[in-house]
Amino acid sequence: MNDDDFQAVLALPDGDDAALRVQVQHDLDTKTKPQGSLGRLEALALQLARIQGRTRPQLQAPQLVVFAADHGIAAQGVSAYPAEVTRQMVLNFLADGAAVSVLARQHGIAVTVADCGVAADFEPQLRLRRLKVAGAERGSADSSLGPAMSEAQCRAAIVQGRRLVASLPGNALLLGEMGIANSSAAALLMARLTGEPLEACTGRGTGLDDAGLLHKREVLQRALDVNAGATTPLQALAALGGFEIAAMVGGLQQAAAERRVVVVDGFITTAAVALAAALQPQVLDSCVFAHRSHESGHGRWLQQLGVKPLLDLDLRLGEGSGAALVWPLLESACRILGEMASFESAGVSQRAG
Amino acid sequence: MNDDDFQAVLALPDGDDAALRVQVQHDLDTKTKPQGSLGRLEALALQLARIQGRTRPQLQAPQLVVFAADHGIAAQGVSAYPAEVTRQMVLNFLADGAAVSVLARQHGIAVTVADCGVAADFEPQLRLRRLKVAGAERGSADSSLGPAMSEAQCRAAIVQGRRLVASLPGNALLLGEMGIANSSAAALLMARLTGEPLEACTGRGTGLDDAGLLHKREVLQRALDVNAGATTPLQALAALGGFEIAAMVGGLQQAAAERRVVVVDGFITTAAVALAAALQPQVLDSCVFAHRSHESGHGRWLQQLGVKPLLDLDLRLGEGSGAALVWPLLESACRILGEMASFESAGVSQRAG
Repeated sequence: MNDDDFQAVLALPDGDDAALRVQVQHDLDTKTKPQGSLGRLEALALQLARIQGRTRPQLQAPQLVVFAADHGIAAQGVSAYPAEVTRQMVLNFLADGAAVSVLARQHGIAVTVADCGVAADFEPQLRLRRLKVAGAERGSADSSLGPAMSEAQCRAAIVQGRRLVASLPGNALLLGEMGIANSSAAALLMARLTGEPLEACTGRGTGLDDAGLLHKREVLQRALDVNAGATTPLQALAALGGFEIAAMVGGLQQAAAERRVVVVDGFITTAAVALAAALQPQVLDSCVFAHRSHESGHGRWLQQLGVKPLLDLDLRLGEGSGAALVWPLLESACRILGEMASFESAGVSQRAG
Repeated sequence: MNDDDFQAVLALPDGDDAALRVQVQHDLDTKTKPQGSLGRLEALALQLARIQGRTRPQLQAPQLVVFAADHGIAAQGVSAYPAEVTRQMVLNFLADGAAVSVLARQHGIAVTVADCGVAADFEPQLRLRRLKVAGAERGSADSSLGPAMSEAQCRAAIVQGRRLVASLPGNALLLGEMGIANSSAAALLMARLTGEPLEACTGRGTGLDDAGLLHKREVLQRALDVNAGATTPLQALAALGGFEIAAMVGGLQQAAAERRVVVVDGFITTAAVALAAALQPQVLDSCVFAHRSHESGHGRWLQQLGVKPLLDLDLRLGEGSGAALVWPLLESACRILGEMASFESAGVSQRAG
């Protein structure tokens, strides 16, 4: 597989998009409300209509995938939590005890855990998918000492993510992730892809103190230095990323090609989106950005991508928790288009002049 | 009835609040997530617990009331829409065609329309409550010529609002409103209560153009001048407000006294909250602020009240639409406390150090 394969996945742009856009805007403008008065909800409705290519978008069987993997760089003490928490949290997701479990249940969102490279072996379970690339009980290598993955491993993880999403029902994908030290991988990708100084890309993750943050930056600088030759997006993903981020890139490509709505959570899922967009910018059109994370760097990265998230609630959990929280707003946007009366149907006077 | 009557409505503060707060914070901190990582959702959970006086708050049978009334000042051309739209939209609410109808149905929120003084008579209907004070087909008087209401009418409207909320089931009140020109009434109350310059308080409402905005400010300045003697909160409410705002003040008092959760929508409902808080500051403790409206002045008023809304989606519709949109976040906050696993129960390692 070469880079061209990734280009071929996306469907061609729909020639009827311009007409659809005009029709949906007209429909929104004739609902019984002042024009534009539902603000960003109206823009969201238009986006969902364009993703689905129909004037009355509908969301069906939403799927939240928690892409999970371990990171060799965790051994350098870059996280406030020990690496075994990745495994423990996978079990917590499967037992419905995590925040994302609770939020997804609230909204009727199915949760699948994708083991992209957790350093543990799990018993087979209904909602656990084995996408391991590096072998049993193996996460990525320590990127402060060399590449996190080989390019072959990275491509294999991308393909795994594409296959996973292709196998899911429904028409919406909510991105979640779990992996101790994966905010380090995301920070490294941000630094390499955007050229921003490492300080602006590196945050406290799950809760580092000042000394911990300083140490994290030193470790990440070593990772950038030792992988200085990894300059294309795919090289950077392999050298600095992680298995769950690579699998998300593939999942994003597949979802965009199938015109699924993609809901992007926080800093780590944004890394996957930025990677996918570096390969195919039109992937961004399929993405709804759920929230601006408290994690330092996320806001700036969203700005660089030219997108504005819907929520700003100081979340910094990951898992897909922000994506699940924002989900009802997507449903509201669809209902506004599908269920509201028009001025004509309700016999309400339009504005004067 | 004198002002003291309004003071007596609120229950005494609960002496166990400090202990409750400590317990709920401990519960939040031992859930399987980094401390504080759910950001404002955690603060919301704590607030809901304190309103209800229990460690596991639960929301039951939420009630959205659209407080509706006409405003004499509409005759001065201060709105982009003709005054008959108030009546037409009441019928649209009852026919389930309005934005708030759609959003409330999505979330299982019951909608009641309170006719506090619409300049029309309606056939009796199940979800329409007649709270008229000024007589059939009568709204408030034109405040640019004199007081909008007599103080006796204003007090009567407050009592009507209290009775209405007392009669509703459930433990949560979502504030909505409808009334052509009621952003003028709210702007006048903001100017009088906060001392901010009228320009900072007056916005485009449902969509005035520049000339319309200029005209609106001139009319409102006349209203401030002609009612210069109305300086206490109740005097200001009577002279510059409207029947739906007065009824909301009463509804807020009743809801706070019963420890109902109150969800505040946009600029006009904030006027009612500011009035109620001027009479009894502890009313604010019961209020969850849904969103920052696009209406000029709302953000500044929220700041003056020392509160921060949850959403910022450029909404400027009113009706309670923002309150309905934010509702799932309140349910999420309760579920986080009630359903998430703790580190101990899930066998997840705590952070190091």
